[in-house]
Amino acid sequence: MTHGLNPPGYRFYPTEEELVSFYLPIELEGRREDIHRVIPVVNVYDHEPWQLPNEAGELCNGETEQWFFFVPKQEKEVLGGRASRTTISGYWKATGSPTYVYSSSSKVIGVKKTMVFYQGKSSKGKKTKWKMNEYRAIKEELDATNKFCIPKLQHELSLCRVYVVSGSVRAFDRRPLGIGTYEIGSSSLLSS
Amino acid sequence: MTHGLNPPGYRFYPTEEELVSFYLPIELEGRREDIHRVIPVVNVYDHEPWQLPNEAGELCNGETEQWFFFVPKQEKEVLGGRASRTTISGYWKATGSPTYVYSSSSKVIGVKKTMVFYQGKSSKGKKTKWKMNEYRAIKEELDATNKFCIPKLQHELSLCRVYVVSGSVRAFDRRPLGIGTYEIGSSSLLSS
Repeated sequence: MTHGLNPPGYRFYPTEEELVSFYLPIELEGRREDIHRVIPVVNVYDHEPWQLPNEAGELCNGETEQWFFFVPKQEKEVLGGRASRTTISGYWKATGSPTYVYSSSSKVIGVKKTMVFYQGKSSKGKKTKWKMNEYRAIKEELDATNKFCIPKLQHELSLCRVYVVSGSVRAFDRRPLGIGTYEIGSSSLLSS
Repeated sequence: MTHGLNPPGYRFYPTEEELVSFYLPIELEGRREDIHRVIPVVNVYDHEPWQLPNEAGELCNGETEQWFFFVPKQEKEVLGGRASRTTISGYWKATGSPTYVYSSSSKVIGVKKTMVFYQGKSSKGKKTKWKMNEYRAIKEELDATNKFCIPKLQHELSLCRVYVVSGSVRAFDRRPLGIGTYEIGSSSLLSS
């Protein structure tokens, strides 16, 4: 459970703001190699979802709840096509509409898409518990007149967070699988 | 957002198992002073809930979601009375029944009570968004015959997690207050 020199309980548990306004810009600008120890560059569609925990960054080793990856634009996307989200055993499909990601000062800083993994052939697949949030950053750039700032979606790279739907309301209350929230009755333990 | 030498996004985000099977036993046995930098000893009932974030451990400085404290048994409890959970402005009241805390190997390791803070005089108070989980460890001890292990609740100390009910399903999706999950329509941002 320990991560390097961290005491137990310390883990990579970023806010969306930290992902979009700290990690994505660093990687987009290629500023620091060492962040790949936290978030490695992985084409997530080259793997089945359950293989992805093994691809997580070394500083997130052993985590069981969520896994983070930088996902570069696919070659076919660069050429103007659509991203392929198909793996050998199934496919990722968007669920809901994209939403904005806000900074703590309520500024729009990114866009988030959520996807679900289906096992089987396209459109006939069976929904699984594997989900993914795909984040892209929004950067303000000067327009052609050099006078106005235009928000521009940074397409070259996304940051993906892969997780398993647990059914638990709070990520904090991580119980062993198959064990519900049993209430304690008139147990001798509590009356001691 | 950074905590000492940790990169952004690293924070104290323990599982219940880590709290009950690592932190509580260390403090119960008085083994390490330095864990008070993570979880200090605070009589939470000497403070109003909104003062508690300021009492959090220095290694959790600036966290906005949850705060952890070791709470020693009150003097009146030692004498056999009931704990006083009253502050100047209100009182903490249990909600639901206590539940067990399990290890990842499905063993019962502790007991958890949840409390809500009410502002005002007892029984007439107004429910607030401040909540608390109170954890106690269970330890197996040999009985008088030295033959059987008896699970025993460790009463001397509890570990409390104070938090504010956010209304957000996942702690991860921390949005600025007052901003909902707006869906993105036919925005120029997404079609660029």
